[in-house]
Amino acid sequence: VKKPVSKVYSFGSDMKKIAEDDPRKIVHSIKVGLAIALVSLFYYFEPFFHYEGFGVSAMWAVLTVVVVFEFSVGATLGKSVNRGIATFLAGSLGVGAHKLVNLSGSDKLQPVVLGLSVFLIAAIATSMRFVPKLKARYDYGILIFILTFSLISVSGYRDNEVLDMAITRVTTILIGGAAAILFNVVICPVWAGEDLHNLVATNIEKLGISLEGYGNQYLKLDVNLEELDRTFLEEYKCIIHSKAIEVNLVNLAKWEPRHGKFRYRHPWEQYLKIGDLVRDCAINIDALNTCLSSCIMTPEGKARIQEPCTKMSVECGCALKELALSMKTMIIYPTTDSHILKAKAAAEKLRSIIRSGSLAEEAELRQLLPTTRVAS
Amino acid sequence: VKKPVSKVYSFGSDMKKIAEDDPRKIVHSIKVGLAIALVSLFYYFEPFFHYEGFGVSAMWAVLTVVVVFEFSVGATLGKSVNRGIATFLAGSLGVGAHKLVNLSGSDKLQPVVLGLSVFLIAAIATSMRFVPKLKARYDYGILIFILTFSLISVSGYRDNEVLDMAITRVTTILIGGAAAILFNVVICPVWAGEDLHNLVATNIEKLGISLEGYGNQYLKLDVNLEELDRTFLEEYKCIIHSKAIEVNLVNLAKWEPRHGKFRYRHPWEQYLKIGDLVRDCAINIDALNTCLSSCIMTPEGKARIQEPCTKMSVECGCALKELALSMKTMIIYPTTDSHILKAKAAAEKLRSIIRSGSLAEEAELRQLLPTTRVAS
Repeated sequence: VKKPVSKVYSFGSDMKKIAEDDPRKIVHSIKVGLAIALVSLFYYFEPFFHYEGFGVSAMWAVLTVVVVFEFSVGATLGKSVNRGIATFLAGSLGVGAHKLVNLSGSDKLQPVVLGLSVFLIAAIATSMRFVPKLKARYDYGILIFILTFSLISVSGYRDNEVLDMAITRVTTILIGGAAAILFNVVICPVWAGEDLHNLVATNIEKLGISLEGYGNQYLKLDVNLEELDRTFLEEYKCIIHSKAIEVNLVNLAKWEPRHGKFRYRHPWEQYLKIGDLVRDCAINIDALNTCLSSCIMTPEGKARIQEPCTKMSVECGCALKELALSMKTMIIYPTTDSHILKAKAAAEKLRSIIRSGSLAEEAELRQLLPTTRVAS
Repeated sequence: VKKPVSKVYSFGSDMKKIAEDDPRKIVHSIKVGLAIALVSLFYYFEPFFHYEGFGVSAMWAVLTVVVVFEFSVGATLGKSVNRGIATFLAGSLGVGAHKLVNLSGSDKLQPVVLGLSVFLIAAIATSMRFVPKLKARYDYGILIFILTFSLISVSGYRDNEVLDMAITRVTTILIGGAAAILFNVVICPVWAGEDLHNLVATNIEKLGISLEGYGNQYLKLDVNLEELDRTFLEEYKCIIHSKAIEVNLVNLAKWEPRHGKFRYRHPWEQYLKIGDLVRDCAINIDALNTCLSSCIMTPEGKARIQEPCTKMSVECGCALKELALSMKTMIIYPTTDSHILKAKAAAEKLRSIIRSGSLAEEAELRQLLPTTRVAS
């Protein structure tokens, strides 16, 4: 008896955590509920659609809303556009195939030609789904294309009925898609582009916090490596594995129209570049971390490099944090450059002292800057 | 004129590359085409289903095949099971809601109660999709649940018709799902579990190649760091970003029954642990790489550590490559242990020489071993 109860309980706490972490998810659930309920009721009351019964119209509209309604505006738009265009294209092609078969073939040949055309279209379209560029943006559309084409070309209707059906399908899908987009954009819209922007900015900020903490704590003379508070070091760990999320958000953001601070055709690809640089940088900090954890330096050696090292890390950290802030607010801070100059000076000093040392983060920073400028 | 032509050309070369890299993808496309064409034709000929016209039966079966047919057996099974169970549950609930409304409510109250129940079910189910554990395995099922429930409860049919329709839907979905599974399993099945196993083994092998190349090339006395052939170092770069792929494959592999060398409930989670260790190890090699690239050592210092370092790297590399081989063939090689012992001895020697150095990979290897044993 205890197990299901504890399962329900842990499920409840899961939900609570989700609601606290991101209340937009709860708002999204309510939006979905509203959209589906209203579209359903619309078809329930509308006698024009109702006379066909459960069959064609209402079903396709409700189905479209359920399937197309995604968390972010970009995803919803992408799916709607994919679904609409794919249905239209496949519908035209299906009607064409139908006509062709009826014109040319005898009754015996008909199913053979139809089966062959369905096989060919389905096989070619499926193989297209493996092309990475097409998969990223049109995967759903290709699926719907296969679906619609096989449904229409195999249906046993006469020509004019097929055309009617195709038109009904396209219009109901348009209605369903429009409802989904409307609900998604009007009530607290979630923009994938904004999420991406904030994610990248937060990652830069985390990097800054790590570097600063690194400068302040790691390089102290009397520090005990085992007792060190390493929480600030954990900050960058999750950056390393954020690539897949970023790629996905970029694909979604490309569908979004102008909103807030972003225009349509915002250079989303640049975020990927920044993201990659941030990840490289995080891996380099990890490298530094590993090196320093295992290196047992003599106190004298440490004392010699301590001042420029600390300065470099802290200034880099400051610069990164300011960059993150300037990305978030989209205002360029004039002090960032001075931080970077100071960091470079400290790095030069350090280099002249030991002619070695892993100054990866400085080199990274130099790379990082122009790219960040481009995007913000 | 030139642009579309070159686009078609680049698309053709994309397809050729896909076919060469993984011929299974082309086989998959043909399988999908065959399955859809045959199921379509079955419904085209079958008079029992045909009399209903395009409407219900044929459509749901073809739709199920198109939507459910995925590349790997695990994904196809997962989607079929999800779709089947969700349709059954939502169908029962929808019929129940329908009966309840017809029994209790007046004509005016009916749509309110229906709309409210659709809203509640859709909102709660959508919020469940955000729970990571449910999302990983049942995301598709929850979607279909919302879909079926709203379709059935809003349809304007009388009670007995609703029941009929629900039964028809469930059976056609079962037929479609069974066809998809049959085609997927009988013709050249692609097992997600096998892919996962090979991916992890290949990653370990890449790590071994990197380490070996590292030992053989990097630590030579007369090496020029700029002119070094770094291709072997690139091997581990893609390991770092393979986490998302692994997590996905594990989720799919859990659906698969006993096949080949794997039984049902194979400890798939262990692969994630090995994968994480391999990734940590790859990041550590990256760290070593960065350190050594920037460190300018004196030739004497280098000469002192050269022999044990080289030995350690090469032996570790050998051990990892053998582990990968033993994973692939599922035979335990007795020589692996001796490689590890040699590597450990070399590491001990190195440690005694310099009492420092980043020996992360040795520590990693020690961790790596027991886990690998568990899985293979």
